[in-house]
Amino acid sequence: MDRISTKPPSGMRDFLPAEVFAREKVLGQVRAVFDSFGFAPLETPAVERLEILQGKYGEEGDRLIFKIMKRGAAADEGADMALRYDLTVPLARVVAEHQAKLGKIFKRYQVAPVWRADRPGQGRFREFRQCDVDIVGVRSILADAEVLLVLTEALAAVGLADFEVRLNSRKVLAGLIEAHGIDASLGTGVLTALDKLEKVGPDQVVAELAADRGLSAQAARAVVDAVCGPVAALRAQLAATAAGVVGLAEVDRVTELAAPLLKGGRIAFTPALARGLGYYTGPIFEVFVPGSKSAIASGGRYDGLVGMFADRAIPACGGSLGIERIIPLVSTVAEGVVSSAQVLVTVWDADARPDALACAGEVRALGVAAEVYLGDDKLGEQLGYASSRGIPLAVLRGPKEREQGVATVRDLRTREQEVVPAAELAPYLAERVGRSRVL
Amino acid sequence: MDRISTKPPSGMRDFLPAEVFAREKVLGQVRAVFDSFGFAPLETPAVERLEILQGKYGEEGDRLIFKIMKRGAAADEGADMALRYDLTVPLARVVAEHQAKLGKIFKRYQVAPVWRADRPGQGRFREFRQCDVDIVGVRSILADAEVLLVLTEALAAVGLADFEVRLNSRKVLAGLIEAHGIDASLGTGVLTALDKLEKVGPDQVVAELAADRGLSAQAARAVVDAVCGPVAALRAQLAATAAGVVGLAEVDRVTELAAPLLKGGRIAFTPALARGLGYYTGPIFEVFVPGSKSAIASGGRYDGLVGMFADRAIPACGGSLGIERIIPLVSTVAEGVVSSAQVLVTVWDADARPDALACAGEVRALGVAAEVYLGDDKLGEQLGYASSRGIPLAVLRGPKEREQGVATVRDLRTREQEVVPAAELAPYLAERVGRSRVL
Repeated sequence: MDRISTKPPSGMRDFLPAEVFAREKVLGQVRAVFDSFGFAPLETPAVERLEILQGKYGEEGDRLIFKIMKRGAAADEGADMALRYDLTVPLARVVAEHQAKLGKIFKRYQVAPVWRADRPGQGRFREFRQCDVDIVGVRSILADAEVLLVLTEALAAVGLADFEVRLNSRKVLAGLIEAHGIDASLGTGVLTALDKLEKVGPDQVVAELAADRGLSAQAARAVVDAVCGPVAALRAQLAATAAGVVGLAEVDRVTELAAPLLKGGRIAFTPALARGLGYYTGPIFEVFVPGSKSAIASGGRYDGLVGMFADRAIPACGGSLGIERIIPLVSTVAEGVVSSAQVLVTVWDADARPDALACAGEVRALGVAAEVYLGDDKLGEQLGYASSRGIPLAVLRGPKEREQGVATVRDLRTREQEVVPAAELAPYLAERVGRSRVL
Repeated sequence: MDRISTKPPSGMRDFLPAEVFAREKVLGQVRAVFDSFGFAPLETPAVERLEILQGKYGEEGDRLIFKIMKRGAAADEGADMALRYDLTVPLARVVAEHQAKLGKIFKRYQVAPVWRADRPGQGRFREFRQCDVDIVGVRSILADAEVLLVLTEALAAVGLADFEVRLNSRKVLAGLIEAHGIDASLGTGVLTALDKLEKVGPDQVVAELAADRGLSAQAARAVVDAVCGPVAALRAQLAATAAGVVGLAEVDRVTELAAPLLKGGRIAFTPALARGLGYYTGPIFEVFVPGSKSAIASGGRYDGLVGMFADRAIPACGGSLGIERIIPLVSTVAEGVVSSAQVLVTVWDADARPDALACAGEVRALGVAAEVYLGDDKLGEQLGYASSRGIPLAVLRGPKEREQGVATVRDLRTREQEVVPAAELAPYLAERVGRSRVL
């Protein structure tokens, strides 16, 4: 047989142990913050019925859903299931299915992979983790503030305390459209164009609004000037519209509640912030750190979405950490194998194996991770194995040591050795490891 | 639109927070044991190229692979990817792809879901976790012993210390077949039949061996008698065959190395143990606990499998915990929502919200998980929320308390209340929570 490719599928990744450790460290810090706010973990299947997913992500999104063929079906019978595309639609399904068990207010997080049949590229994957917190069942702006607080606290916990929260409300944008006499039916198009301000600059957005989005050249320029100009002038325009007044109040209330408690970052009312997705209804935000062009966290209120599978509207707000962008910012990831072990018990010869297994067991019983070298190789190779995996201490016990009832402990970082009575070896190692943990 | 089903796909499960906590507790204990032996975590995509999976699981297995349709393909263009069916074939692919980075010896664990288009049933799922440890690159029986030790240590860690390890070697079975003058080409059929001994009893296995597996009635009876009869007699038969001698030595060496170090269980040489899968080549084992009909852990040596994508043979042995069977044995799982929070900060009215958010932040800063009640409900409902989620302490702060600079802390388990100066509230709560953790 020809040798077939052993690469993972295009746009997907193998994570070797060093990468898993680095990723899990960050994810563990994030989960701990979510837990500390009383958000509870939810797990849903990687697979959903196709009818649950289809039509929820727009035309382009629908095309990017990975579909799964029916069991044993001929190819032309097609698919009835699909891989999870995000974590929000499964949340909506779970809320509808388990309403009674979840109670009126449900705060959940989910950190899990999603799959998109996107064109793979630099930093764009077909399998990647999403990291969502959502609060279901709360109308109060207190929930919007809490979403901001928990996400920014998670950023601070992983070491990104220098962030800027850009805050707006969809109702501010609705007020703006109203204030400029633009027909409400053009609103979505205006948002889509404004969403590109940062990327393409104001002139091109004005051009797009006039050419493709149905605005007069004058209105196009006025809207762009309003969102890019002084905030005081914009506030004055909005004060004359019903939606604008509510939107400003939302922005101010979120700021008032969250700003005093932010860990290190700041909140900036950003009228140009539009957020592409259609489903937002209230406050929206994006979080940036210096040196990152895309947002590393984002979210907002979407009161129409979570109730879509239930028989009633259910208010909700939430947000995501862009965890695949965050991990490279906060961790240097080695490749290959590292070991959790602090001690390698080397093996002199076949006769020494029972002794080595027992020694490792005694060390582990004291809470220290320990490996026995399993191969038939010479001592030099055994010590090389430990060094390459970051194991700091090695236990050596040849015939002479056994005869004398001692063992040699070698520190692979300093190359210093110490001879220890066999009976005291495990507590000695536990003490050594404990000491270096403190340092 | 008609309301569509909001159940997860057939054979798959939503895990609400209480279930996630219970499952993660067990998985965390298991991972900690794997880490303590120096096994390192590997993560592979949920999706593999179809050609990697196909032909690896036998004819029936091939039919149970969930196939994924090509992106944007018309239905009749079929599939080129599939959902992971187990964790062993992906390991073999990774070993071939990353040989240089992994080194000569690679000890890995992977705890991850797999998908099978099986008929769902009691305790049989289409999405379920596998929990594998494998040692790649070691010929020595020391590795087989370590696999047994790490898996049984994990069982002990989750509370299943009363186990029996049934141990055999494929070479014992080969020797048996040789000793009874059965043609080696019938070996696989004999193993398949012997594998049913426990389930259908000896007479039916004798019948199957004679009717379907090509043995004479006499040979069929003799083989079954040998594996079910006294071990001493079997050992004598095996001593006359080359494979039998090696097989017995393997069994004895694994026992000699592992038995003295087992945490609570015992090892029994079980000549009737065959293990269905074709790929085993050396020692094989299954682990049982009282009251469990199926094995809760199993594994063995399979020197031909891991090298299948590489250009050379690579020795390997490993095993799995039947974690989906183990979890119900060791945990009582509530349904619904539980919270990690130890403290609910109740909210008197809208004006009290900034104060409540700040209070929760101070408590969290001392390492205690704390929630703010986010709804607009009366105090009774707020306290009911805490009770239903298992949050033990609530902070109450009405206008009178604020005026006096105090807060009331209510213990929802005992209904006792204590009034605490506001400035001392956070340390007071940290102390209360710390105290109840110790109890």
